[in-house]
Amino acid sequence: MSDCIFCKIVSGEIKTNFVYEDSDVVAFYDIKPEAPVHIVLIPREHIERISNIKEKDAGLVSKLFLAATKLAQEKHIETSGYRLVINCNKDAGQAVFHLHLHLLGGRKLTWPPG
Amino acid sequence: MSDCIFCKIVSGEIKTNFVYEDSDVVAFYDIKPEAPVHIVLIPREHIERISNIKEKDAGLVSKLFLAATKLAQEKHIETSGYRLVINCNKDAGQAVFHLHLHLLGGRKLTWPPG
Repeated sequence: MSDCIFCKIVSGEIKTNFVYEDSDVVAFYDIKPEAPVHIVLIPREHIERISNIKEKDAGLVSKLFLAATKLAQEKHIETSGYRLVINCNKDAGQAVFHLHLHLLGGRKLTWPPG
Repeated sequence: MSDCIFCKIVSGEIKTNFVYEDSDVVAFYDIKPEAPVHIVLIPREHIERISNIKEKDAGLVSKLFLAATKLAQEKHIETSGYRLVINCNKDAGQAVFHLHLHLLGGRKLTWPPG
């Protein structure tokens, strides 16, 4: 998608330091961090939102979460704890319409989650 | 796990109205709702936390999310929006050590997510 900022990050058109990448997923620090560790994980494929996920894409969701758990280990927040968040559409404040998973940790996270 | 409250919900030892169930996943309303729609989705299998997920369990994560997207449609929050949250360990306030996914919608959710 030519006008998608996350597709431009995937393609390299917007230079970004990846903290994780594999054949399906890339991850980078959120530009507006809300916690000491705040990483965004995205599929390379352009899927607009979680509600567009079909059975055939399901493996991709698992890959996002497996990557997030690896990153949590690497960033030393696995034991202390972390929150994983996906926003869908306006009420959740989804800001970029390319599916993404937020990994937040390194501080106490309050409840409710927004 | 004999002392796990979510395993007791799965087994029927604690009577619960399921809003969704299939061979791998069950879902029910959160007893302390934080939004007009606040549903908890869990695997029938006892997995303590998301950080315990291995490659072999990855399909289960996808199934939780596919079920959540179906529920969001059924509860008419797909278009307005919703947030999906998984808490891992103390900093995230994980309260029950049986993997679970929160689906919250029906109101504007703020940022940061806790």
